[in-house]
Amino acid sequence: MIETPYLLFLGDAPDKLAAKVAQGIKDWRPEYAVGQLRLDGCNADMKLPDLTIAEAVEKGVKTLVIGVANRGGVISPAWKNVLIEALEAGLDIASGLHNLLRDEADLAAKAKDLGRTLHDVRVPSVKYPIANGKTRTGKRMLAVGTDCSVGKMYTALCVEKAMREKGMNATFRATGQTGILITGGGVPLDAVIADFMAGSIEYLTPDNDADHWDLIEGQGSLFHASYSGVTLALVHGGQPDALVLCHEPNRPHMRGLPDYQLPSLEDVRDVALRLAQVVNPNCQVVGVSLNTSSMSDDEALAYCKEVEDRLGLPCVDPFRHGAGRLADALAAL
Amino acid sequence: MIETPYLLFLGDAPDKLAAKVAQGIKDWRPEYAVGQLRLDGCNADMKLPDLTIAEAVEKGVKTLVIGVANRGGVISPAWKNVLIEALEAGLDIASGLHNLLRDEADLAAKAKDLGRTLHDVRVPSVKYPIANGKTRTGKRMLAVGTDCSVGKMYTALCVEKAMREKGMNATFRATGQTGILITGGGVPLDAVIADFMAGSIEYLTPDNDADHWDLIEGQGSLFHASYSGVTLALVHGGQPDALVLCHEPNRPHMRGLPDYQLPSLEDVRDVALRLAQVVNPNCQVVGVSLNTSSMSDDEALAYCKEVEDRLGLPCVDPFRHGAGRLADALAAL
Repeated sequence: MIETPYLLFLGDAPDKLAAKVAQGIKDWRPEYAVGQLRLDGCNADMKLPDLTIAEAVEKGVKTLVIGVANRGGVISPAWKNVLIEALEAGLDIASGLHNLLRDEADLAAKAKDLGRTLHDVRVPSVKYPIANGKTRTGKRMLAVGTDCSVGKMYTALCVEKAMREKGMNATFRATGQTGILITGGGVPLDAVIADFMAGSIEYLTPDNDADHWDLIEGQGSLFHASYSGVTLALVHGGQPDALVLCHEPNRPHMRGLPDYQLPSLEDVRDVALRLAQVVNPNCQVVGVSLNTSSMSDDEALAYCKEVEDRLGLPCVDPFRHGAGRLADALAAL
Repeated sequence: MIETPYLLFLGDAPDKLAAKVAQGIKDWRPEYAVGQLRLDGCNADMKLPDLTIAEAVEKGVKTLVIGVANRGGVISPAWKNVLIEALEAGLDIASGLHNLLRDEADLAAKAKDLGRTLHDVRVPSVKYPIANGKTRTGKRMLAVGTDCSVGKMYTALCVEKAMREKGMNATFRATGQTGILITGGGVPLDAVIADFMAGSIEYLTPDNDADHWDLIEGQGSLFHASYSGVTLALVHGGQPDALVLCHEPNRPHMRGLPDYQLPSLEDVRDVALRLAQVVNPNCQVVGVSLNTSSMSDDEALAYCKEVEDRLGLPCVDPFRHGAGRLADALAAL
């Protein structure tokens, strides 16, 4: 686990989109986001106090999180000075960058000397077991999508929020780098060795209280030619009691695969449920989460209603309508 | 690729089963198996000429293959002497052992000094791409199973043999360590990083002649809670034109999962075909391969007939009946 709270390092983010990790932390774990640190040329702003490293330490920050995608795939000298200063001031550093902190000789040496931790969340830090398929206590929801990047992480986080507001016992379980940085822990599933994928998800979602819900972030899609194996490992390792279908309408094709059309929600429902019932015969599909950002309010409502009538399941855009109805459907199981 | 032909190193194999890699090479690529090298205490015998390292070199051997599972997970001093001698005599070494050749400092240093290659086939030696799902030329068959270890490698090798006997253009494609050692190349899929699984299979089975068949070794099962993700990556990366269902009757439960019953052949047919058609809408299930080793000849014939009538597909035990009918079914596509 990454120690909290965080100082969000925005570097020289060219725009807001480049700082989406920081935005995710601010949105979903505001209690972790004590302040931000911006360099010259930064065009992102989380509306948090701008803090120096020293001020952050003063306020109890434990970890500097790199909340920005860097340009050109290298850690620039301008960043380096800040990162070294952070280590010297007593902070750990967490990053989801492709170029690993640990591969930077100066950072690695400094961290080692001072006993600080460099969290490269893109790569596993745990030796995961092979999945054993044993029934676990507690309940689990998995977000499954028609495609990559249709809002599975967002959906699971929204359901967690809605459940907690209802006083339910619920934990978001991150399976990707952004989710791990937001919540401080999780499994970087796309970087796990094939044989251990399902086991890593069993490890992430162990036995729990009977009324506890793990809300598992989905990855990829059972219908995505590049990443479907990762998705099936989630379905079987996650042992879900409930599936929420996630979809973004109006996509011209599967992400990164111009020759592939998206499957229908019915396709995903049928195939995902059949496979989930291998490990949990009682698994049910409980609702649909739509990303209607390309639609007007009226269009979004009409579309949700159409899908709701067609599938006979509660159907919301959690960003527009909240995830309360999905939480209710889960609570009713 | 591993250079052929081979000297099969049987070490101090306690019994025949411990030397199953060597047996596989002898059975399926006899032209690669020039001789064997046995140490004191070896109880396995491939009925090949016993050769010293010098004699093997004399006969044109290029690689010493460790054809035995070692005891205790360490490479013993008795083995070391032979392996060092092999490197000094100009041979490469290939191994599927868990303890890697490259992790043995003396072997690694000697190989580096002399310019020899240590092939640890358990770990990938290639940086595989992300799958792109593009349609490829040539034809592909994938063996899919109700469970692990039901005969998928054996089935694909048998079909390759039957096709070649019929003058067809066919290549077995190994996806596990034994198959890689037998044929000299392939993808150790269970050790590939999650994101690159399907891409590794696209890499393994590229564009080919229109009449060429890749016969792809299956792994795991879509119904196996531990390894199903690996299997789905094969289904989507392999882009099969044809599936052959593999099954071993009379198993009490899924391999390694005492709480899980095997799926029916109908289950595997339906789920595997649905998923395969995501990447190849023309994919068909063409036959069934049964491992009837637990049955008498009469029982085996009766069982094959029963399954054949039930599924309406050619159904054979390739070990007992040959794979000719499966090859015919593929040729008819």
